[in-house]
Amino acid sequence: MSQKPLILVTNDDGITAPGIRAMIKVLNEIGDVVVVAPDSPQSAMGHAITINSTLYVSAVNIDEGKQIEYTCSGTAADCVKIAVNEILNRRPDICISGINHGSNSSINVIYSGTMSAAVESGIEGIPAIGFSLLDYNWEADFEPTKEYVKKITKAALQNGLPKNVVLNVNIPKLKKEEIKGIKVCRQAKAQWKEKFDKRTNPQGRDYYWLTGEFVVEDLGEDTDEWALKNGYVSVVPVQFDMTAHYAIQHLNGWKLNN
Amino acid sequence: MSQKPLILVTNDDGITAPGIRAMIKVLNEIGDVVVVAPDSPQSAMGHAITINSTLYVSAVNIDEGKQIEYTCSGTAADCVKIAVNEILNRRPDICISGINHGSNSSINVIYSGTMSAAVESGIEGIPAIGFSLLDYNWEADFEPTKEYVKKITKAALQNGLPKNVVLNVNIPKLKKEEIKGIKVCRQAKAQWKEKFDKRTNPQGRDYYWLTGEFVVEDLGEDTDEWALKNGYVSVVPVQFDMTAHYAIQHLNGWKLNN
Repeated sequence: MSQKPLILVTNDDGITAPGIRAMIKVLNEIGDVVVVAPDSPQSAMGHAITINSTLYVSAVNIDEGKQIEYTCSGTAADCVKIAVNEILNRRPDICISGINHGSNSSINVIYSGTMSAAVESGIEGIPAIGFSLLDYNWEADFEPTKEYVKKITKAALQNGLPKNVVLNVNIPKLKKEEIKGIKVCRQAKAQWKEKFDKRTNPQGRDYYWLTGEFVVEDLGEDTDEWALKNGYVSVVPVQFDMTAHYAIQHLNGWKLNN
Repeated sequence: MSQKPLILVTNDDGITAPGIRAMIKVLNEIGDVVVVAPDSPQSAMGHAITINSTLYVSAVNIDEGKQIEYTCSGTAADCVKIAVNEILNRRPDICISGINHGSNSSINVIYSGTMSAAVESGIEGIPAIGFSLLDYNWEADFEPTKEYVKKITKAALQNGLPKNVVLNVNIPKLKKEEIKGIKVCRQAKAQWKEKFDKRTNPQGRDYYWLTGEFVVEDLGEDTDEWALKNGYVSVVPVQFDMTAHYAIQHLNGWKLNN
């Protein structure tokens, strides 16, 4: 019997995306890899799960390597749920999601399918890390990311993650030698300033495309945005207790039962 | 010119759901209501946004009342973005999402389209509240909820919400006289223990339905689950900084740059 850690791998760009393919190669060096990933891109699906539709699972063989692979017709969060409950015959030691094509830093963690898979694992009590590269290009160079996937995954396996915490790792779009190191950070305060591109369809009806500009209002030097801008890989510990504990006292002051 | 507050109303069950219709009636008494809600149910979509597809908006007239209404072809979070950027001619004073048909207490906040609309508003800097009734039935009785929608919305308008905090309000499925009051709470630690219902389609291929049992592991009496179980309306302040600040020190101990 293998003594290697069991690594569940997923993403939200779909099982054939270059980001997940690059990551699988690295993770094969660390443990026994089982991939359960969406059969088509699921980006910006947030923490969606499939409750009003059916889910299909297929064993597949995408490329060389010793990993075992399945596609699932659902979202990234669905992949984790079905992997843990139906596919794997033991609990994974860690779940690794990504490498996402594009940033999931700052507030993007909220919209991210990549991170929803990591959070779903965390809720299931399985340590998890989401990796993202700040390059939306399908032909992005994932070579410089490999060393960080390896280092951070191994560290998480060795040290263990705090309970109810998963990691959001973003990697700047830089050459290997340009990356300065790794910084543990907090999520920067930022938002998308949306701009809707209004067009008219061939039938004369107006429709919209959502576009926008990412605006970082947070000048702190302890944030993921600062780290990435300054050449570091950012590591943000993410929790799924969304309670603003500090606000409870304020709300009690509203005297809602009077 | 009206001195009344401008109230943006949305939901994730779709614009014709009895929950949103009941809520609109109450909110018409408090302010000028503009509804921008999905044209079809979007439940369990998490914080999904539509970036790879087009969005349509239509002015509609669903029932009597002085509210102005639009449907949008996207998710609840899309509705908020397009309302604020394209439909409304001034910033809303508050965004109210719901009343959801079914609980969004505890960890369900993560999967909830209702709460994603509230969180999206919060990110835009607009105070927001999501309301949910613990009754999945389409014919649920929303009468007992009205007093709480009114009271909590008015209190939020009068007192203001702390910055970067939105409210997650859940209402127990009880008769008016059985509800004991309102409790400000923290999110209970709980999870869905999934069970996949495996079936075979007419073509002989296996497929799955996601089902599950909601398990509350948290015995605290300061949680939303405790409040709801004991006959109270629960109010949880929700933040969208997902950083587990307390874990940063632990992670720095991993010495990732050595």
